[in-house]
Amino acid sequence: MDNIMVFSGSSHPELAAEICRYLGVPLSPTNRTRFSNDNLEVQLAESVREHDVYIVQTFSPPVQEHLVELLMMCDAARSASARRVTAVVPYYSYARSDKKDKPRISIAGRLFADLMHTAGVSRLLTMTLHSPQVQGFFPMPADQLSGQPALVQHFGVRELANTVVVTPDIGNAKRASQLARKLGVPLAAGNKHRISDDQVEIEDIVGNVGGKHAIVYDDEIASAGTIVATIELLRKRGVTGVTIATEHGVFSGPAIERLRDLGVAEIITTNTVPIRPEKRLPNMRVLSVAPIFGEAIHRINTGESVSAIF
Amino acid sequence: MDNIMVFSGSSHPELAAEICRYLGVPLSPTNRTRFSNDNLEVQLAESVREHDVYIVQTFSPPVQEHLVELLMMCDAARSASARRVTAVVPYYSYARSDKKDKPRISIAGRLFADLMHTAGVSRLLTMTLHSPQVQGFFPMPADQLSGQPALVQHFGVRELANTVVVTPDIGNAKRASQLARKLGVPLAAGNKHRISDDQVEIEDIVGNVGGKHAIVYDDEIASAGTIVATIELLRKRGVTGVTIATEHGVFSGPAIERLRDLGVAEIITTNTVPIRPEKRLPNMRVLSVAPIFGEAIHRINTGESVSAIF
Amino acid sequence: MDNIMVFSGSSHPELAAEICRYLGVPLSPTNRTRFSNDNLEVQLAESVREHDVYIVQTFSPPVQEHLVELLMMCDAARSASARRVTAVVPYYSYARSDKKDKPRISIAGRLFADLMHTAGVSRLLTMTLHSPQVQGFFPMPADQLSGQPALVQHFGVRELANTVVVTPDIGNAKRASQLARKLGVPLAAGNKHRISDDQVEIEDIVGNVGGKHAIVYDDEIASAGTIVATIELLRKRGVTGVTIATEHGVFSGPAIERLRDLGVAEIITTNTVPIRPEKRLPNMRVLSVAPIFGEAIHRINTGESVSAIF
Amino acid sequence: MDNIMVFSGSSHPELAAEICRYLGVPLSPTNRTRFSNDNLEVQLAESVREHDVYIVQTFSPPVQEHLVELLMMCDAARSASARRVTAVVPYYSYARSDKKDKPRISIAGRLFADLMHTAGVSRLLTMTLHSPQVQGFFPMPADQLSGQPALVQHFGVRELANTVVVTPDIGNAKRASQLARKLGVPLAAGNKHRISDDQVEIEDIVGNVGGKHAIVYDDEIASAGTIVATIELLRKRGVTGVTIATEHGVFSGPAIERLRDLGVAEIITTNTVPIRPEKRLPNMRVLSVAPIFGEAIHRINTGESVSAIF
Amino acid sequence: MDNIMVFSGSSHPELAAEICRYLGVPLSPTNRTRFSNDNLEVQLAESVREHDVYIVQTFSPPVQEHLVELLMMCDAARSASARRVTAVVPYYSYARSDKKDKPRISIAGRLFADLMHTAGVSRLLTMTLHSPQVQGFFPMPADQLSGQPALVQHFGVRELANTVVVTPDIGNAKRASQLARKLGVPLAAGNKHRISDDQVEIEDIVGNVGGKHAIVYDDEIASAGTIVATIELLRKRGVTGVTIATEHGVFSGPAIERLRDLGVAEIITTNTVPIRPEKRLPNMRVLSVAPIFGEAIHRINTGESVSAIF
Amino acid sequence: MDNIMVFSGSSHPELAAEICRYLGVPLSPTNRTRFSNDNLEVQLAESVREHDVYIVQTFSPPVQEHLVELLMMCDAARSASARRVTAVVPYYSYARSDKKDKPRISIAGRLFADLMHTAGVSRLLTMTLHSPQVQGFFPMPADQLSGQPALVQHFGVRELANTVVVTPDIGNAKRASQLARKLGVPLAAGNKHRISDDQVEIEDIVGNVGGKHAIVYDDEIASAGTIVATIELLRKRGVTGVTIATEHGVFSGPAIERLRDLGVAEIITTNTVPIRPEKRLPNMRVLSVAPIFGEAIHRINTGESVSAIF
Repeated sequence: MDNIMVFSGSSHPELAAEICRYLGVPLSPTNRTRFSNDNLEVQLAESVREHDVYIVQTFSPPVQEHLVELLMMCDAARSASARRVTAVVPYYSYARSDKKDKPRISIAGRLFADLMHTAGVSRLLTMTLHSPQVQGFFPMPADQLSGQPALVQHFGVRELANTVVVTPDIGNAKRASQLARKLGVPLAAGNKHRISDDQVEIEDIVGNVGGKHAIVYDDEIASAGTIVATIELLRKRGVTGVTIATEHGVFSGPAIERLRDLGVAEIITTNTVPIRPEKRLPNMRVLSVAPIFGEAIHRINTGESVSAIF
Repeated sequence: MDNIMVFSGSSHPELAAEICRYLGVPLSPTNRTRFSNDNLEVQLAESVREHDVYIVQTFSPPVQEHLVELLMMCDAARSASARRVTAVVPYYSYARSDKKDKPRISIAGRLFADLMHTAGVSRLLTMTLHSPQVQGFFPMPADQLSGQPALVQHFGVRELANTVVVTPDIGNAKRASQLARKLGVPLAAGNKHRISDDQVEIEDIVGNVGGKHAIVYDDEIASAGTIVATIELLRKRGVTGVTIATEHGVFSGPAIERLRDLGVAEIITTNTVPIRPEKRLPNMRVLSVAPIFGEAIHRINTGESVSAIF
Repeated sequence: MDNIMVFSGSSHPELAAEICRYLGVPLSPTNRTRFSNDNLEVQLAESVREHDVYIVQTFSPPVQEHLVELLMMCDAARSASARRVTAVVPYYSYARSDKKDKPRISIAGRLFADLMHTAGVSRLLTMTLHSPQVQGFFPMPADQLSGQPALVQHFGVRELANTVVVTPDIGNAKRASQLARKLGVPLAAGNKHRISDDQVEIEDIVGNVGGKHAIVYDDEIASAGTIVATIELLRKRGVTGVTIATEHGVFSGPAIERLRDLGVAEIITTNTVPIRPEKRLPNMRVLSVAPIFGEAIHRINTGESVSAIF
Repeated sequence: MDNIMVFSGSSHPELAAEICRYLGVPLSPTNRTRFSNDNLEVQLAESVREHDVYIVQTFSPPVQEHLVELLMMCDAARSASARRVTAVVPYYSYARSDKKDKPRISIAGRLFADLMHTAGVSRLLTMTLHSPQVQGFFPMPADQLSGQPALVQHFGVRELANTVVVTPDIGNAKRASQLARKLGVPLAAGNKHRISDDQVEIEDIVGNVGGKHAIVYDDEIASAGTIVATIELLRKRGVTGVTIATEHGVFSGPAIERLRDLGVAEIITTNTVPIRPEKRLPNMRVLSVAPIFGEAIHRINTGESVSAIF
Repeated sequence: MDNIMVFSGSSHPELAAEICRYLGVPLSPTNRTRFSNDNLEVQLAESVREHDVYIVQTFSPPVQEHLVELLMMCDAARSASARRVTAVVPYYSYARSDKKDKPRISIAGRLFADLMHTAGVSRLLTMTLHSPQVQGFFPMPADQLSGQPALVQHFGVRELANTVVVTPDIGNAKRASQLARKLGVPLAAGNKHRISDDQVEIEDIVGNVGGKHAIVYDDEIASAGTIVATIELLRKRGVTGVTIATEHGVFSGPAIERLRDLGVAEIITTNTVPIRPEKRLPNMRVLSVAPIFGEAIHRINTGESVSAIF
Repeated sequence: MDNIMVFSGSSHPELAAEICRYLGVPLSPTNRTRFSNDNLEVQLAESVREHDVYIVQTFSPPVQEHLVELLMMCDAARSASARRVTAVVPYYSYARSDKKDKPRISIAGRLFADLMHTAGVSRLLTMTLHSPQVQGFFPMPADQLSGQPALVQHFGVRELANTVVVTPDIGNAKRASQLARKLGVPLAAGNKHRISDDQVEIEDIVGNVGGKHAIVYDDEIASAGTIVATIELLRKRGVTGVTIATEHGVFSGPAIERLRDLGVAEIITTNTVPIRPEKRLPNMRVLSVAPIFGEAIHRINTGESVSAIF
């Protein structure tokens, strides 16, 4: 490959290392300092002049720290004369801030896209944005990978007769509908009503679920409140079993406790967000996205089609 | 009001005139020329220096002509020293081009947002974008009005017991879900599979519709192919009657012929797109959005809250 | 050549194909869709990642359609990570909108230059702009080729004694003056007074034309109104014969009918604008500019001087 | 007037003072320093916060000094929070650098337009740009005034029977043609061939001049080489007398010596460029443009039409 | 005052409230949400359309949270059509990241200036930037207030015979030199050698301090390591007493413990950074900058000179 | 090396030629014209298409001429399709205009950084900016070389016992402090009070100098007023001898006369500014920076680390 260098922010060094192994390049070193006034400084510890630089940073908590660190690293690379600076953001949390559902808020998914552009990001590589329109927020070329093929492959080896894919939110059912079609099973949807960030009510299930095994799918699981409420209603509606599937397993706050005793068959997620050992429940299966990102970086670097991965 | 001037592009002068009547200001004149090489020229026929200028242009067919004309008028206003140039686009057709559902296409909803910015548009006023995320495409302040209150008000005076709101596409059900909640009726959804632009298959209806009156809602109706397919399936599922409701009644190509003999109770639309007399079917009801746009312009001009309209 | 790809808009695929033959590369395919709401979509049907992309689109009627299509194709190429996007616009019709000859119009030649920049055009390749200053409108590098060498070469093999070059408009005589000097013949000029777009009065001919053969030259012929009026006056002034020469043969509206019975010796034009077979009069000679564009693209791609073509 | 402030660069304080008298406002003071390393510093000596600021600077020699001084003053005004910064440039010398007549030069008329924009100029006010297309170079609103009405008014009181307007350059005859039409006299044109910056050959006069009084018009006279060559040839062609008319009387280098003994009836110019007393020949008449600029500034400030001045 | 609105970020609401009292306007409310994935959302809870909006946020720890929150609030205000958005940042911590003292770091003081510009900040109001050059980093108008007058006023009422101002770092002695001149006392300087962020060695004191009372001045005190090292060496050099003076009292980490037992006469600081009660040592005097910021906002709003405050 | 081309502005062709010799490439030719209206034109006389172009121009007097010439050359290179345009500015005089030490002046060091960006400069290469923060003014990558290693190397071969480095201005002592540390000698500082540009008073010397040899160091010497005043005071304080060292030897106005009879041991400078033979005093030693610039250009071109030079 041509002059490729990969650096990692502090959010997910394991994933960065795994991507480097796929690519067969070493992870380039950085020096981080937090000054006594809480200012950050990140030094890229090797010359990047005229190199094709990739900076891996996922937007796991603390999100704001990781965002600012990414911006500083990209600015450092650009001003140190990197030929191209690609931000690799497996989980772009602010994709959820994609519309003005209240007056006088920031559409932060767009704002941070612009900030990355200002900080010298010449290209973005990300996975499964909360809504596909968010790709249009980026002023620079943005490649959106999908984690769904990994999920499909995982399920594909199983017996899926009498199974239904369920999305908790009929207002955001596109991806669940695609998953159902790929698995060849029907779709049902919750009619979700959000009371607060951590409290939702699932008013109803639209579609037939009784007597079936439900694959409850959401692109992101944070506090798991929505998932738990959906599963409770599904059980009232007579499902015979439940599997949880997601791409972005944030599992914050009470999530792990909620999931631990839920009695579901399996929890499938990817590692776009780091999942510490103590969070890894016995029935949790973490699929690595490193090969997908590694292959995409390889293709960006060599000028091959990225869309052909799918 | 302070120095307000309203100009109209050639797409929908009736709506512009109606907005002016609401505002109590005259529609400012323009001179249009099409040169023999097909170049356009539009002259704003009154001084706009330091005025607060609104240019009304909807993206009805021929869309490309209307888009370019709008860009030229905004550029003319800006370079003639207007204090502010607001593009008033009741129907922003390219909101449908909001994602990369194929590789190597333009996300044109974002592109034209940027082009308007380049052409000197300092603010956008529009209605019911196909997806709410599209608001985030605009680099300048963009106010999105909703035509749904007019629909709700229309239905509100009726007896809605035993009624269901149906969206043809479960992958885009957010607005239908909001309408159902406002009307206090349940929601059902088609599982749409698009074969080509004008041909869709509705694979299934998710939710119960049998024995109910269906309000089939879509934000935009162009060739009416989707609507017709949905209604056919709904009738197979045993609905007792059908009403069609939409905000953007484009009604292009075979739409009017398809709708004429469909036997639905009522077709409710707004006038964000001009509907010529020969298209106005006996059971069609066209609600005017001029008061909503007029009030929004009034509030923009006087610095009052626009979100408070809702 | 290095990674070159050529795509064609819908305005002039014959010229694009001819340029490809010169370059020895295939014309890359596109998929065009016009949706039922009149939205356009153009997909570049091959991966362009890291390629040097040329998009050929001339501004023939319908000009606005072709302009918007070009902008969408360039945006698609840029966001699909083309290394460079060159818009190849043999006839840039809006070069005529190059000044504010009335208050409150757009200098559209500048506006569309900026729009192309916004849409991701990193370089422009064009021919014979109506005024040479228009090259300064483009914020990106713009190479202006000249079709005049082809005209000179055509005339160069003839006997030009007792010939005069005549421009219809003394206010725009620079190029005619250059042609006269290259052919080694004197110059005369009409004193043109434009009454409307399609109606001009030639008040007088400045310079001696009596007893001479006149080569009436204009950079662009659309409705042919100016040319016909000039020739009528020239005949009153006693010319012995007339040849018409132009670079951009738009020949719109009544042009062909006007030219058919005009009794001129020859009509020389290039193919920057497509000339359909039914417009090709027996005395018309169409010179191809494909070799000039092909050579320029070759030189841009390999980093050789383009100005050295002349 | 509303918060108007006028500052003067060092090029033409007399004109700035005269404009202030027209407006009835004092000329605001500045402090200029030239440091020992030749750096310039200009301090605006009064608060400009939220004021409507006009900075008068003409591009007379030393042009580069005056250009840089203007940029610094505009940047100072912008960063000191002026509400609007209008550069008033009566003579924009670089309008002559308006095209690439050689490869690999800067189209400096465009470059300096962009530099002014970068330096915070929000509006330009200028007079008679060498070619009207140059107005399209400016990314900010640019008002171009004309000095021709002053010339017309001057000639209008005279007997113009048997007079002809002559432009030295048929390649740039638009303005002379307009002047001829306004004065109601015919037009003739020199066929100019430039040998070097200061040496031109007028190959021929196109049009009849014998026995007539010639008003030789050029928008700008610098070394006067072109004018002198034209007049010599006109005299050979039998003109009975000559008047020289121009808008920008630069009169640099040998100009005054050449004009002194030329024996022309009258030299008419404006004061867009300062003309020191020793350059004011007995037969020279300098018309002030201060009222035109003053009126334009008044109208910009109060939001009235500037184009209505003409 | 004209349409003024003041909002507070979460860093220093007490200062914002105090500024509002000075201005006689209410502090406008906000709604803050931290989602379960750690995303922030801030809603401005009152209409800002056409208002002159000030957002008060100091860069106290957690700095990155406060920075991002400020960017989101400014973006919200801009896109909600505020007429002007002024970021009020009393302590701009990243002013310390003002140069490349190592290769391949970000000059973050410049980066965040650009990010604020991107986020819609149209004007900055700050105090005592670590180096005065940092003002040049901001692409928008930036007013830099000084806290030094408050310090001078505080000392001015005392007997200052036999006093010396001491800066710990001869490499950054400009402001200490100004303070010494204003107090009419001599200056001495430490020759500082930084070992790590929290460890410095003062190699020597340049200038005479023996037998004098030392006012040890630094623009910012974070961990207090530098100050303590300086004072230790000053005592070895025979000073009779010590007073500490600073503008930005960050007092992070071990600072308060270090200062508690240092035995200095007085610690003078301002409240640009919030100082919680438990940090307020008995010998600490906190001077409020609210009147200075209040007066500056008043003058920005009414268009009066801000520099005249000094 | 890859496609490298070096052009020289008119300020310092000797240095450009010396750099070319280091690189082993020819100096590319230019054609300069000054028109009779004082407009400049510079033509790059060889094709630069796709080349890596370096334009050498130092900001020696006349500074404004050299600045504008540089901007025009860079714009010419960019619009002629150079792949990269690096401005090589050994002495960036406007680095001294780095802060607002008076209200309502331009921070010209930032302004001209922005102007270079607008003119197409994609990278800057400079030496020893007056303050290190100025590097943060540039929106494009900027490499700052240091001339100090040359000075250190020069002094390194001598006996430096009993020597002190003296900076005339304690407010700007960082670089002198670094020099002292590298030479292993103590530091002393003048307490400078500027009365006017050419008149300064050195109020006091902070630190011990009696009986020592003083190396008086300033990054730039223009009129030499500061240096002379410092040396006079040093002699009163009992120094035994004086050497002057600087990086930017501007030596303008009375400088050479002042230095000629000053009786110092040696004057060490570099050639970032051309020093004409008549200015080369017998005790002056001019160290060439051409190898440093040559090596940096070599490394930029080949993608090696530039910071590794130090």
